Amino acid sequence: MAKQKKTPRPKADTPKGFRDYFGADVAERKAMLDAIAGVYHLYGFEALESSAVETVEALGKFLPDVDRPNEGVFAWQEDDDWLALRYDLTAPLARVFAQYRNDLPTPYRRFAMGPVWRNEKPGPGRFRQFYQCDADTVGSGSVAADAEICMMLADALEAVGIERGDYVIRVNNRKVLNGVIDGLPVYSDGKTTFPKVRNVDEMMQVKMSELEFVSPDAILRTIDKFDKVGREGVLELLTTGRKDSSGAEIEGVGLGISDAQAVVRFLEARGINNDETLRNLRNFVGEPIEFDDGQVVPKNIEFADGLGELSDIADLCAAQGYGPDRIVIDPSVVRGLGYYTGPVYEAELTFEIEDEKGRPRQFGSVAGGGRYDDLVKRFTGQEVPATGVSIGVDRLLAALRMKGRIKADTTGPVVITVMDRDRMGDYQAMATTLRNAGIRAEVYLGNPKNFGNQLKYADKRGSPVAIIQGSDEADRGVVQIKDLVLGAKIAETATLEEWKDQPAQFECTVADMVARVREILDR
Amino acid sequence: MAKQKKTPRPKADTPKGFRDYFGADVAERKAMLDAIAGVYHLYGFEALESSAVETVEALGKFLPDVDRPNEGVFAWQEDDDWLALRYDLTAPLARVFAQYRNDLPTPYRRFAMGPVWRNEKPGPGRFRQFYQCDADTVGSGSVAADAEICMMLADALEAVGIERGDYVIRVNNRKVLNGVIDGLPVYSDGKTTFPKVRNVDEMMQVKMSELEFVSPDAILRTIDKFDKVGREGVLELLTTGRKDSSGAEIEGVGLGISDAQAVVRFLEARGINNDETLRNLRNFVGEPIEFDDGQVVPKNIEFADGLGELSDIADLCAAQGYGPDRIVIDPSVVRGLGYYTGPVYEAELTFEIEDEKGRPRQFGSVAGGGRYDDLVKRFTGQEVPATGVSIGVDRLLAALRMKGRIKADTTGPVVITVMDRDRMGDYQAMATTLRNAGIRAEVYLGNPKNFGNQLKYADKRGSPVAIIQGSDEADRGVVQIKDLVLGAKIAETATLEEWKDQPAQFECTVADMVARVREILDR
Repeated sequence: MAKQKKTPRPKADTPKGFRDYFGADVAERKAMLDAIAGVYHLYGFEALESSAVETVEALGKFLPDVDRPNEGVFAWQEDDDWLALRYDLTAPLARVFAQYRNDLPTPYRRFAMGPVWRNEKPGPGRFRQFYQCDADTVGSGSVAADAEICMMLADALEAVGIERGDYVIRVNNRKVLNGVIDGLPVYSDGKTTFPKVRNVDEMMQVKMSELEFVSPDAILRTIDKFDKVGREGVLELLTTGRKDSSGAEIEGVGLGISDAQAVVRFLEARGINNDETLRNLRNFVGEPIEFDDGQVVPKNIEFADGLGELSDIADLCAAQGYGPDRIVIDPSVVRGLGYYTGPVYEAELTFEIEDEKGRPRQFGSVAGGGRYDDLVKRFTGQEVPATGVSIGVDRLLAALRMKGRIKADTTGPVVITVMDRDRMGDYQAMATTLRNAGIRAEVYLGNPKNFGNQLKYADKRGSPVAIIQGSDEADRGVVQIKDLVLGAKIAETATLEEWKDQPAQFECTVADMVARVREILDR
Repeated sequence: MAKQKKTPRPKADTPKGFRDYFGADVAERKAMLDAIAGVYHLYGFEALESSAVETVEALGKFLPDVDRPNEGVFAWQEDDDWLALRYDLTAPLARVFAQYRNDLPTPYRRFAMGPVWRNEKPGPGRFRQFYQCDADTVGSGSVAADAEICMMLADALEAVGIERGDYVIRVNNRKVLNGVIDGLPVYSDGKTTFPKVRNVDEMMQVKMSELEFVSPDAILRTIDKFDKVGREGVLELLTTGRKDSSGAEIEGVGLGISDAQAVVRFLEARGINNDETLRNLRNFVGEPIEFDDGQVVPKNIEFADGLGELSDIADLCAAQGYGPDRIVIDPSVVRGLGYYTGPVYEAELTFEIEDEKGRPRQFGSVAGGGRYDDLVKRFTGQEVPATGVSIGVDRLLAALRMKGRIKADTTGPVVITVMDRDRMGDYQAMATTLRNAGIRAEVYLGNPKNFGNQLKYADKRGSPVAIIQGSDEADRGVVQIKDLVLGAKIAETATLEEWKDQPAQFECTVADMVARVREILDR
């Protein structure tokens, strides 16, 4: 038997990768999410709060083929089932729609806001519980649903305080991307690339075994880096590779230079407005076209289809006054390799911030989404078209803080100090009087012996005002009002003489207290 | 090797004991919690949103001495640690205060609202994820903190829509309860009970081995049932036992009848006002007193201490105008066996509802709490006084629904139907016009072919109004406005002739649309 030991005290720590949110953090996020929810509600979307716990089967991210699945999710076994915390709000939406499809209206427009959990290696600024804020329309295949979400996203950004001109919603279509990639060679011997259907003769001249398949995903992944590495970077990555900023060698995709140039031409097809962009993109479709370098791009039905959808979205938005100052067709938008099947969109904040090295750069993406038509099918066998967006709550909140656009009231309470322990009822009455006037107020409830501690407490609370009433003041029916904001300013700049005058503290009658406190708060 | 099988489709189900909240459910709860948060904030309390995941060590409810702990919490192993979902909001508060005690103001007033998880057997109406809503003051030993929470709780109930007179905050003190129990005999031979200190001679006459210890917890547990089983029930339970409503035999605690009567006298000490209650309670303390039956209750310091605190709380509340119509000293309040060490309080809704058998009964408790001074000590070794309340979110919400006091706007959106697929831009423009006027609106985005389906959709959404514009109407610059609320009423009661007149549908110019829709909404 093991020796009996005294149990050591438990550690008071959040688990690694988890954190707590205090006062202003909670209030600021809530104010932002409330504003977004207001916009979503106005557009006819309904709130949904799905269970935080799902069966692993419903989440479908992995199967419990090992003793304990832990790839990406927090999971535990219960009898024969595995349960897990949701890792996003989309997988639960698919489950909910499949489960309640006979009762829910179709299309089902819903928004959802709440924490999700990822079982990933925690790191600085990388947390394993964080907020997501999603809006989706399930059961509509119409691009009007995509256009609506783009416009709603623009409204939501303005509602939280991002001004017009400081953001843009960039729209693309995965069919267009797939169409372009489909027109590209898919085999490479490291120097030359070979198209899927053309150049069979040429391909016969090299041994097939020396050819490597160029994955469309690899091309897509590279295009996704266009924002970060730019034109030259993408050209290098699509061909023979490049050194990244740390000096590490990144392998190239293996396309020939002319193919890579064709891709970059596509990425740079964004014109001065959506009409010009769509005109430029039309060059990549229609009748087979031949480029200067002799490359031929055949007519591509998927591309044409996607281009038509993009054109419809641009028209629908323009008809509501959402022009290219807000909603921009941009062929370089990819939105990862996910499950998107049609339109994709992202919200980018265009104002400049400094990167970690002090260089200016755009703030970047704060929301993204697109059309996904296969998620509900897993459950029902029926394809259900859906489109939706997810706002990066922490990033958008960070942007609002940078721009000073936080709308939450984070002022501390008026603190009524305690000079005489036997008169708690009187002090409470002052707090009640202030509260009845709508002013946040509280009585100091710690040990009142040390008055300095009471003022330190008020300081820590961010209190704008402290109220002081000793027995002398009580006898005379007055209170001392200490303006803590002004007091702090004076303390920073005042001379000793000025300090002695204590202009930040004054006396008033009990009857005047509310009015005088309000004067300070309104200042 | 196992045979390859086609993977079956996953089941679209919430795990057992979990549920999803839709539209109105979410909106109604949010409106209620926002109103409560408003009151808490006004009292100087700060929001705290702690991590949903804690180390099992910090939760401290159990130790991972078996392979997988699952007593009451959802837990999983991570390397050498066990993590778990929080089962309430108080244990995380203790951890947070211990972790951040040097940075947090003391006293630390915080409120918290969010889901908690319990790994219990699910049943009808018993869920394994549910909301809690707590407010606590950590670091104040003053009963002014307890009084404040009682008054704040009263304000919170009124803020969500419970009218004065429909609720009462009942206050007691565990020291008083402990004091009474401490004055009781603690050994029983099944017929006679033997006090701890007195009657040693009498005890010597029976064999010690035939005596059973009467646990103070058993007495406390029985007192806790006073509300449910009444005076006679408690007398039976404290002595020889009773049959419950299902006919099952419940074992008695084993007190003698005179001791049981003394307990009931205590429970019934509540007078017509707090002064009288306190006067009645004073009979249980002070100099040793002797009852009619010869039982002697000795002077009890803990009782006297608790009674003093109760008296202070009543005085503080009365001084702020919170009289016994709202805050009542009630010796029968126990609040379970938990960790309470001083004042305990609960909010009871006093209006009548029907129980499952149609008999009238009071709605009952919707919130409870009290003082607990030992929770932080686990972490730091230092005792930190704390007091706080938890509102039963689902119960309070149910009460508001019963009383028709829900404040959330759960009206569906105006639905603009689609008569002509090519004019989506026009329909979207109508929705935009309505939204710009602050009216919730959306365009039908399903397949528009079957117009009946569009109206069925509007019906499922709870839409008050549908807008219809075919090409004829468009040419004339008008829309049809269908009043769906009035329409539903007429459909229920109208004759065929009245039905043909369709008074619930009318035509107006596009320019008048907003005004006419608002008329219907305002009705």
